[in-house]
Amino acid sequence: MNTLRIQKVTDNMRALGLEQILVTGTANVYYLTGLWCEPFERMLALHVKADGEMKLYANKLFALKGLSDVPLVEYDDTDDCIAVLAGDMLPGQLGIDKTWPSHFTIRLMQARPDITPVLGSRPLDEARLIKDEEELALMRVSSRMNVQVCDRIGKALYEGCTEKEIQALYNQIAQELGSPGPSFTPLICFGKNGAEPHHDSDGTKLKRGDTVITDVGLIWKHYCSDMTRTRQFGEVSDEQKRVHDIVSAANRAGIAACRPGVKLKDIDRAARKVIEDAGYGPYFNHRTGHGIGLDVHEFPDCSAVSETVARPGMIFSVEPGIYLPGKFGVRVEDLVAITEDGCEVLTR
Amino acid sequence: MNTLRIQKVTDNMRALGLEQILVTGTANVYYLTGLWCEPFERMLALHVKADGEMKLYANKLFALKGLSDVPLVEYDDTDDCIAVLAGDMLPGQLGIDKTWPSHFTIRLMQARPDITPVLGSRPLDEARLIKDEEELALMRVSSRMNVQVCDRIGKALYEGCTEKEIQALYNQIAQELGSPGPSFTPLICFGKNGAEPHHDSDGTKLKRGDTVITDVGLIWKHYCSDMTRTRQFGEVSDEQKRVHDIVSAANRAGIAACRPGVKLKDIDRAARKVIEDAGYGPYFNHRTGHGIGLDVHEFPDCSAVSETVARPGMIFSVEPGIYLPGKFGVRVEDLVAITEDGCEVLTR
Repeated sequence: MNTLRIQKVTDNMRALGLEQILVTGTANVYYLTGLWCEPFERMLALHVKADGEMKLYANKLFALKGLSDVPLVEYDDTDDCIAVLAGDMLPGQLGIDKTWPSHFTIRLMQARPDITPVLGSRPLDEARLIKDEEELALMRVSSRMNVQVCDRIGKALYEGCTEKEIQALYNQIAQELGSPGPSFTPLICFGKNGAEPHHDSDGTKLKRGDTVITDVGLIWKHYCSDMTRTRQFGEVSDEQKRVHDIVSAANRAGIAACRPGVKLKDIDRAARKVIEDAGYGPYFNHRTGHGIGLDVHEFPDCSAVSETVARPGMIFSVEPGIYLPGKFGVRVEDLVAITEDGCEVLTR
Repeated sequence: MNTLRIQKVTDNMRALGLEQILVTGTANVYYLTGLWCEPFERMLALHVKADGEMKLYANKLFALKGLSDVPLVEYDDTDDCIAVLAGDMLPGQLGIDKTWPSHFTIRLMQARPDITPVLGSRPLDEARLIKDEEELALMRVSSRMNVQVCDRIGKALYEGCTEKEIQALYNQIAQELGSPGPSFTPLICFGKNGAEPHHDSDGTKLKRGDTVITDVGLIWKHYCSDMTRTRQFGEVSDEQKRVHDIVSAANRAGIAACRPGVKLKDIDRAARKVIEDAGYGPYFNHRTGHGIGLDVHEFPDCSAVSETVARPGMIFSVEPGIYLPGKFGVRVEDLVAITEDGCEVLTR
């Protein structure tokens, strides 16, 4: 158990008027208990009351017994797991973790009609938003390793190599460096594939004159990195160079806007303005960034509607892009950690 | 759109008294529309009415426009995606797909208090339960490829190799054969690691006298395979041989019980009885099997409480195991397809 974090979360619960929440996401449970457990389709749920009392409900197969001082209730594959926890819930509002599969929530509502499920991730999101020193240190290592692997796959590009091959190479080098694996499937996009923001890497072969997007991240002690570099392979057109310059400038403008007190929507604006002013506004069709930590995408968004105010300890991506369908795409992504007077770029 | 499948699903909806459902799982949406889309944290939802009317709600980034004849409503990262669909839902009961992240369901309930969410996956589960000829053909290929890769990694074992290394080799060979990748992270367990049913493969080195579990599967045209083989490396003890024989016999007994009209709990019983009779009952601590198809774990369970009756076209795993903590584990898993008069083992 991490007493300081539990304190933060229960403070947030009281501020939000939540008497009880069910924490079910793997990263959220880890954040509070130190137990890392991927439940897949089975149920994992940590009941947290505003007074700090907690109880963990887990399948016997997860083998969590004796690993933590959180009271543990185990069930097996023949039990009705919802019946096992339903009786322990207080009547009234119950905060539900955002990613809990809906069938659990619905079955719980049916078992306990006196309970009203409400959004319950906010106390955790708000706590995880501000990284402590230990988390910051792990995030720095994760990004430093990622930069290293990304450099190496950049140097490994050759005419005729495939996206899949470079993807596999990323995974291999990350593992060699001691990472358990990538934080998401590496996105390697050659030429016009880069114009699809989430193209699945395939057998496409690299040609001279291609723009190459590498959007990659790895895991280090449960903490995720994420970075995008766009490279030009061989001689490229003036348009490819110009678009790359514009996106780099947008990335720098976004980063320059990162300091305590600024709303994330204004950081989005700073980056987006550069692209709009250059006439490519309609081709930057996604948010500027996202929070990152134990999950590769976490609260908050850095988008045109994000009212979240930057505070020291927050880490998020700044990743503007321009995508020209049928031609090529450019994205430049860095992770920034907000400091007392600006930000630290983790991906350098 | 697949008219036959939509017909099956709407028939099931009417039989269950469901006027409308929200289909949100990637595989479920693919099953009905032919569109494969991983929404990650964004919203993907196919509204299906019992009269067959459908509408798909998707983020613009998914780039689904023009790919299907299903009416499409797009939103972007600055929209409130729930507001975009809430107005179109009928009042009353709304079936919700089981894996939909709870925050969508809760926000929809808040936007539309006149709607009652109920479990909504059953119409799809019941349809997907019975594979058609095309699906059976793909499942056969997927398993045939898996057997081939599993044989090759079995032959590649050598003293001192690590679990991680064999895991990476599985992925590499699967890709060489044309699979986009594994259907789940390959589980390679040496020695006492095999006593943890879901051990994460790590740097453990293979020693003479180890029992080796390889639980692996790959994807072929969206269809998953899954198979476990347990091998003995070098000279092993009488106990290791005996336990392997018992588990193999349990696997054969489970498969022998597979035919139309038999309840899945009786197949579980047939396999479990062999292990119980041999005195190892407490060491077989999971269900005997699970359905498989577009998802690697899908409806139904083959467990002690499964009332589902086997019918031709159903495909599920038969995977008894014995796990002796601190010593070793043995699991033997095959996939069976129920036929008119028995079953076809796909993993031979």
